[in-house]
Amino acid sequence: MLGTESEIKVFAGSTGKDFAIKICNYLDSQLGKSKVITFSEGNTYVKVEETVRDKDVYLVQSMGLHPNDEFTEILFWIDAFKRASASSVTVIMPYFSYAKGDKKDEPRVSIRARVCTECIELAGADRVVTMDLHSPQIQGFFKKPVDHLFALPILCEYIKSLNIEDLVVVSPDSGFAKEARKIARYLGVPVAIGDKEREGHDENAKIIEIVGNVEGKNALIVDDFSISGGTLIDLANELRKRGVKKIYASLSHILLNEKGVAKLKDSPIEKLISTDSVYNPYIMDCKKIKIVSVAPLFAETINRIHKRESVSPLFEKVPKKVIQIED
Amino acid sequence: MLGTESEIKVFAGSTGKDFAIKICNYLDSQLGKSKVITFSEGNTYVKVEETVRDKDVYLVQSMGLHPNDEFTEILFWIDAFKRASASSVTVIMPYFSYAKGDKKDEPRVSIRARVCTECIELAGADRVVTMDLHSPQIQGFFKKPVDHLFALPILCEYIKSLNIEDLVVVSPDSGFAKEARKIARYLGVPVAIGDKEREGHDENAKIIEIVGNVEGKNALIVDDFSISGGTLIDLANELRKRGVKKIYASLSHILLNEKGVAKLKDSPIEKLISTDSVYNPYIMDCKKIKIVSVAPLFAETINRIHKRESVSPLFEKVPKKVIQIED
Amino acid sequence: MLGTESEIKVFAGSTGKDFAIKICNYLDSQLGKSKVITFSEGNTYVKVEETVRDKDVYLVQSMGLHPNDEFTEILFWIDAFKRASASSVTVIMPYFSYAKGDKKDEPRVSIRARVCTECIELAGADRVVTMDLHSPQIQGFFKKPVDHLFALPILCEYIKSLNIEDLVVVSPDSGFAKEARKIARYLGVPVAIGDKEREGHDENAKIIEIVGNVEGKNALIVDDFSISGGTLIDLANELRKRGVKKIYASLSHILLNEKGVAKLKDSPIEKLISTDSVYNPYIMDCKKIKIVSVAPLFAETINRIHKRESVSPLFEKVPKKVIQIED
Amino acid sequence: MLGTESEIKVFAGSTGKDFAIKICNYLDSQLGKSKVITFSEGNTYVKVEETVRDKDVYLVQSMGLHPNDEFTEILFWIDAFKRASASSVTVIMPYFSYAKGDKKDEPRVSIRARVCTECIELAGADRVVTMDLHSPQIQGFFKKPVDHLFALPILCEYIKSLNIEDLVVVSPDSGFAKEARKIARYLGVPVAIGDKEREGHDENAKIIEIVGNVEGKNALIVDDFSISGGTLIDLANELRKRGVKKIYASLSHILLNEKGVAKLKDSPIEKLISTDSVYNPYIMDCKKIKIVSVAPLFAETINRIHKRESVSPLFEKVPKKVIQIED
Amino acid sequence: MLGTESEIKVFAGSTGKDFAIKICNYLDSQLGKSKVITFSEGNTYVKVEETVRDKDVYLVQSMGLHPNDEFTEILFWIDAFKRASASSVTVIMPYFSYAKGDKKDEPRVSIRARVCTECIELAGADRVVTMDLHSPQIQGFFKKPVDHLFALPILCEYIKSLNIEDLVVVSPDSGFAKEARKIARYLGVPVAIGDKEREGHDENAKIIEIVGNVEGKNALIVDDFSISGGTLIDLANELRKRGVKKIYASLSHILLNEKGVAKLKDSPIEKLISTDSVYNPYIMDCKKIKIVSVAPLFAETINRIHKRESVSPLFEKVPKKVIQIED
Amino acid sequence: MLGTESEIKVFAGSTGKDFAIKICNYLDSQLGKSKVITFSEGNTYVKVEETVRDKDVYLVQSMGLHPNDEFTEILFWIDAFKRASASSVTVIMPYFSYAKGDKKDEPRVSIRARVCTECIELAGADRVVTMDLHSPQIQGFFKKPVDHLFALPILCEYIKSLNIEDLVVVSPDSGFAKEARKIARYLGVPVAIGDKEREGHDENAKIIEIVGNVEGKNALIVDDFSISGGTLIDLANELRKRGVKKIYASLSHILLNEKGVAKLKDSPIEKLISTDSVYNPYIMDCKKIKIVSVAPLFAETINRIHKRESVSPLFEKVPKKVIQIED
Repeated sequence: MLGTESEIKVFAGSTGKDFAIKICNYLDSQLGKSKVITFSEGNTYVKVEETVRDKDVYLVQSMGLHPNDEFTEILFWIDAFKRASASSVTVIMPYFSYAKGDKKDEPRVSIRARVCTECIELAGADRVVTMDLHSPQIQGFFKKPVDHLFALPILCEYIKSLNIEDLVVVSPDSGFAKEARKIARYLGVPVAIGDKEREGHDENAKIIEIVGNVEGKNALIVDDFSISGGTLIDLANELRKRGVKKIYASLSHILLNEKGVAKLKDSPIEKLISTDSVYNPYIMDCKKIKIVSVAPLFAETINRIHKRESVSPLFEKVPKKVIQIED
Repeated sequence: MLGTESEIKVFAGSTGKDFAIKICNYLDSQLGKSKVITFSEGNTYVKVEETVRDKDVYLVQSMGLHPNDEFTEILFWIDAFKRASASSVTVIMPYFSYAKGDKKDEPRVSIRARVCTECIELAGADRVVTMDLHSPQIQGFFKKPVDHLFALPILCEYIKSLNIEDLVVVSPDSGFAKEARKIARYLGVPVAIGDKEREGHDENAKIIEIVGNVEGKNALIVDDFSISGGTLIDLANELRKRGVKKIYASLSHILLNEKGVAKLKDSPIEKLISTDSVYNPYIMDCKKIKIVSVAPLFAETINRIHKRESVSPLFEKVPKKVIQIED
Repeated sequence: MLGTESEIKVFAGSTGKDFAIKICNYLDSQLGKSKVITFSEGNTYVKVEETVRDKDVYLVQSMGLHPNDEFTEILFWIDAFKRASASSVTVIMPYFSYAKGDKKDEPRVSIRARVCTECIELAGADRVVTMDLHSPQIQGFFKKPVDHLFALPILCEYIKSLNIEDLVVVSPDSGFAKEARKIARYLGVPVAIGDKEREGHDENAKIIEIVGNVEGKNALIVDDFSISGGTLIDLANELRKRGVKKIYASLSHILLNEKGVAKLKDSPIEKLISTDSVYNPYIMDCKKIKIVSVAPLFAETINRIHKRESVSPLFEKVPKKVIQIED
Repeated sequence: MLGTESEIKVFAGSTGKDFAIKICNYLDSQLGKSKVITFSEGNTYVKVEETVRDKDVYLVQSMGLHPNDEFTEILFWIDAFKRASASSVTVIMPYFSYAKGDKKDEPRVSIRARVCTECIELAGADRVVTMDLHSPQIQGFFKKPVDHLFALPILCEYIKSLNIEDLVVVSPDSGFAKEARKIARYLGVPVAIGDKEREGHDENAKIIEIVGNVEGKNALIVDDFSISGGTLIDLANELRKRGVKKIYASLSHILLNEKGVAKLKDSPIEKLISTDSVYNPYIMDCKKIKIVSVAPLFAETINRIHKRESVSPLFEKVPKKVIQIED
Repeated sequence: MLGTESEIKVFAGSTGKDFAIKICNYLDSQLGKSKVITFSEGNTYVKVEETVRDKDVYLVQSMGLHPNDEFTEILFWIDAFKRASASSVTVIMPYFSYAKGDKKDEPRVSIRARVCTECIELAGADRVVTMDLHSPQIQGFFKKPVDHLFALPILCEYIKSLNIEDLVVVSPDSGFAKEARKIARYLGVPVAIGDKEREGHDENAKIIEIVGNVEGKNALIVDDFSISGGTLIDLANELRKRGVKKIYASLSHILLNEKGVAKLKDSPIEKLISTDSVYNPYIMDCKKIKIVSVAPLFAETINRIHKRESVSPLFEKVPKKVIQIED
Repeated sequence: MLGTESEIKVFAGSTGKDFAIKICNYLDSQLGKSKVITFSEGNTYVKVEETVRDKDVYLVQSMGLHPNDEFTEILFWIDAFKRASASSVTVIMPYFSYAKGDKKDEPRVSIRARVCTECIELAGADRVVTMDLHSPQIQGFFKKPVDHLFALPILCEYIKSLNIEDLVVVSPDSGFAKEARKIARYLGVPVAIGDKEREGHDENAKIIEIVGNVEGKNALIVDDFSISGGTLIDLANELRKRGVKKIYASLSHILLNEKGVAKLKDSPIEKLISTDSVYNPYIMDCKKIKIVSVAPLFAETINRIHKRESVSPLFEKVPKKVIQIED
């Protein structure tokens, strides 16, 4: 439940600062003062540097490229806010890396997403705002309310602005087919489905076949995230062989590391469109990558939470003001 | 509560393997099969590779030089064991780094030790075995039983074996005075107390004065842990000025990094005695450092837990077999 | 954790009796004495009629055709066993109807599967054994260990025994494609994928197209469950149009009501193969329906739990003795 | 704790609609939009169809004639409201059927009332408003605040309006004697006590004797609830034999089924007075039954909760406006 | 759940020692070594003085004449046992004084019985054994198993041994009538019921009338407990006036203080029979008071718990060996 | 979280009345109406006698000279407030006696401070305000926010007003040295440290030596609390022997009983300065004892909590208005 104070208090974790500043700009508010130190023996220390007594606090931090550090830091932040008598703590976590560990698909493994959600709730989080979870069931790992946002309308609006003719949306596998179909429908174009087989934990997979007509078209490969870029690029190569003209790709979350970025540069992919849900220093200078900010979407969500307005209209369609596409 | 199975099942976390093997050697048992992977996007994945159904599991992993990784991994291990129907999970955590965050000595900080203990219990740990916690109150942060061991008898037995004449135990500050007195009493020698002032979080502190007679003696500086080695070396320099002859130092936990080891080499400290409670690759080649293993102490504790025998006799005096001093 | 008593105590809920007796036959044990009354004002009353003090209890009851009654009854059973000092309570729930409510796919709905799992754990269940959950993530809704069994090997062994030539496995939609592929691989035959669109909550869906070669073959339609039989029959009709010869179908859980059974009789489906995971009186007299019992699979699981043996080998391959195909 | 929003949001469960509309009429507010579906396989699905973000929600639903369905539905509603970020959820449950299961009067039964209260709290209810619980101790099964209302003043005001001369209040057994005495005192008339013996769970009981003077008087039999009407009618017959003139009866909760209503018609009972705490379609057309609404009492309670005014004055005396007796 | 150790470990709280020794005598076991200190500033300190690692511990302590001290001490004992790794802790609490606070019969009071039961469970109790709770619903305040014993058969067997002719059992009020009837049935004699009115919290009540035939008979007044003796003696005086010959009284729990004992001596009550459920030094020298020990009943219960045998047969009939009536 | 009501509602427990009235005077508010009864059988009964619905309640009660009674009463108060629908309950506990039981320094004892904090939170406390806890780690035993105040500035301001020349602050042992140094720094004077050895639980300890220059000076002995006065007086005698002139003493909490007060009168201590954190009737008439009230400090804290202002500035420096030194 929200408190009676009217001011929005946004704070940033160590890797959430850029994103938080964009949110504050949208909201026309000041980023909360705080400090993070990593001591030389490895311990993380957090300090809130202004009063949050009976205030509604919004902590901005993804579990991104350093998920263990970010997870631990989030727990410490929540504890610090709660012990400092914050009225409520909302965790703004645009990307939740451990969402990938959402099932026990082998004997004797941990369901890591559940471990993380439980600890976050134990520490005292009152609400979580996140985007494009690996599976929708993960919302059920939380007991507290979750506002689960979608990058789809924002990514699609950008893609529309590119005015690509004769486009076909391509899902890399049947697991993402349902989502790909949604994107295709939003863009008003057909869909095709690749078929890959992932074996073990080697993060790579072999493309077997492509179902649907792609020849002579321009293609938009869509996926939720990519680490090495392997799946995207293999599929792009396959599409090229099958006579696809221009190849684009779109991801909700971009985790590409240096090697991945290098591979992308040499690939037939024209442009890779993604969001700023993860703080990723490796992609900064890559011209092929276009980042569309979802910070306004999160900012508008915070705004509605704070004003006690319905957030669900943002799930399907987004107001113009949260789409900020400039070049 | 323990199960009805008689076999001891010791497993190792990613940084606990060496220590776990020493434990298994003492217990004459086989290290449990398991696997840890760090995926390229940063996620940690753990897998238990043999059945633990209805077995009492002992997981060996300190929170040492990478406390966030080790903390998160411990949670995942516990979850994996519990979901695999282990009868009980005992966390063998010789060093608990976040124990340092045991109070709210400034406004709006987290009590990080409590956050960690709560998450460990939430994940499903049934018992924790640890050593020389930063403060004894931390045991009260746990609800589950804790076996809190002391390095003192093992360190002291080694020091006794050095046959140093005219020894005085020196505490670097009044905070460690009580503990220093215990060590002195065990060794049958007098005590002296330094006085330092720690300001802010800079991990360094200025020595002010030394209370007690040290001139012309050999000194043993004692402390619970050291990161940069700064306090120890400053005090050693001070003692040298005051006419101390040979200077030794003793620590429960040794966190020295490369820089610390370098400084130690150039210092008047003859020998630094510590334990293997932390996996520390930086100290491997330093001749001045003598590591006395506490693995037999932990192994004997596991043995007694498993045989339902009293552990408390180990707190004050240790049986000969757990003291393994060889050169 | 299991107790020290060696006897297996199987009890049956009001709709689990037949299944429990099959389990007891396999285990050569006696069904526990108990009583359920539904009072005329609608209240359910349960009574355990023999001592369970410090015993490991296995309660057999699906959430099947009357999920609210069965859910409530399960809670009361668990409470009765626990207050009667049972050492542990394992819920044998071959079908978990509310697993379908596993996500918040619309604003302001309940995640009903999580509500049920939490209440079951609150009531005191120590473990759940279930089969073919609607999504694998639901295992993460439980905190307690879950043994998640699969009907696949048992259904497939029966299908193999039919010696159908030129078979193709058909998935009714892309959501079940992954599972269909597993079945096809087990049977060593190709796969085809239908494409349906479900709109709203009307339980019916329109078949759009079939991807893959089916003409002139015999087909096995596969799905996890069917209520009205609509999807299966529509697809069967579609397959018939496309020149498929004999059409079979296979379901993990069969919920067909009277109307569904009638529709099945008039359909081109030759034989519908399913399991006894749900107590379903409507299907008793239908010659087209073949029920393969999974009770031996559950019984063997109980046996291994009780003997502290690994259960995971049962997930992929099953021993001969749990396959009981007779005509 | 209540939120900062001023609007009262009343929602109705599937069997609470009539009662909720009466409440809304009293409060001059609009019933919240929502939807309940029972799918053909038996699953209940609930959906809140307007925003409740940070609002105080009042859910109206008794556990009445279908307690398992109503119980399960209540849990789903609470979960739906909480996940939709309601500020608080108050369950308005005029009748709580499982309150009858409030003790372990036989070995190895469940304390069903505790199971229900715990699940309701687990699901997230912040407060419960109920009436005439089977025993006052049940309030202690809840940890959350309970407003426990009494039908007595409202029933008695109606009875007073009948101006029955020479009235004696008759309790069917010593268990209800204390309550009967309260009613008699409110009405300013004497009391008599019947003595019945209930054996086993057969819901019937034999009248043994009547203590107190009843001959030549008019009698009001009082009880908390009746299912079959058996106790009331047996006692009425007994009273008739002993020379009682007109016989009335009064119940807090009326659960009479068709058979009960038929028996009532043929009985010497002139008029049976009760409340609308249970949605009971069987009693609609019975002229002998007079329903006095307690909806205004609940509405006034909601009003005071919402305005943060004391509710306890309503326990003993009720303001005129909540008594709505018309013919 | 019980552990695997065969030895019964009975410990005594500060006021449970006598009772515990009787239990140990019956069980032929040694009382566990322990220590309680009350420091001069008022703090209670408890220490277990022998290992309880993985043992099943039975702590004997009523909440009797110093309920706050005894309640607090019980919590500390449980915590000490659990932190010392006891396998299970069973609280043997023959009398639970705060059971009287089992409802919210006035606005804004605490349900003290629930507060106590929750704290006892939070501290870690695994089971409670108690006798003649103020109301049977209190068992539902516990989540853990409770063995609820009855003094009735033991008290009645003693009364039978007195061979009183022409006996009538008298209940002081209608609240205890049901229980009185049970006693009368056990003894094979008729019952009469007094009628008292208790006003406010003054612990006294006025006898109004006696229903049933008592003249010329010998009477046994029965109640669950007495503090001042007021009710008993007033009723005895009333019975004397009505021509009753010899008057006996029987209580489950005897809390009489010095003043109460003095009043009893001067009263027409011949003999007051009760149990040793409360440690009560005031009654030691009173010849009119006969204490029948229930320690063998509790000992036999412990014995059966420990041997995993059914306890419920003890609720109605007791074996000869637990009845120890000597003069 | 605080509610939306603006009025501060201060209530007093049985031994907190004087302190609560001082708080109310500072806040210019009315003490809440309530009642405590101790029944003759020992049970404590509490009743809130005005509505607290949706109000923020501040309950004033130390755990002082009767810690078990006060602890139990605090639990009942919290439960009563919560069940009466208070919005939040803040426990104002100036002294927390069981804080002394904060570690497991011997085998098989209870960590009593943790037991108390957990029960207080379980009962429903939302926040605790306390002063000079025995160790700062105890704050970590609470999960809820704690405002931990310090008597230091208030005591020191009074001492400053005495204008004692040539003062030295003396700590009775090394354990309090750090705190003594803070006091000395506040007063701008040097520090000396005594050295005592406490053996077992006999509350007495032998002074060994005094480190630092005291001869010819006036001394202020400082400690956190004193029960028998033994340590203070022994140290005072020792100081006298070493040529100290006037001797003062200062305590955060004063628990002296009659004997202690008598000993103080005969001792060389000129004046003993302490606070009113404990209700202590024994010290009322002792001229040597000067009580400085910390009630204004607590009142100002409540004021800031209620106005949602930062409390932390009060930890180091206090505003003039909370210092009330009059003679």
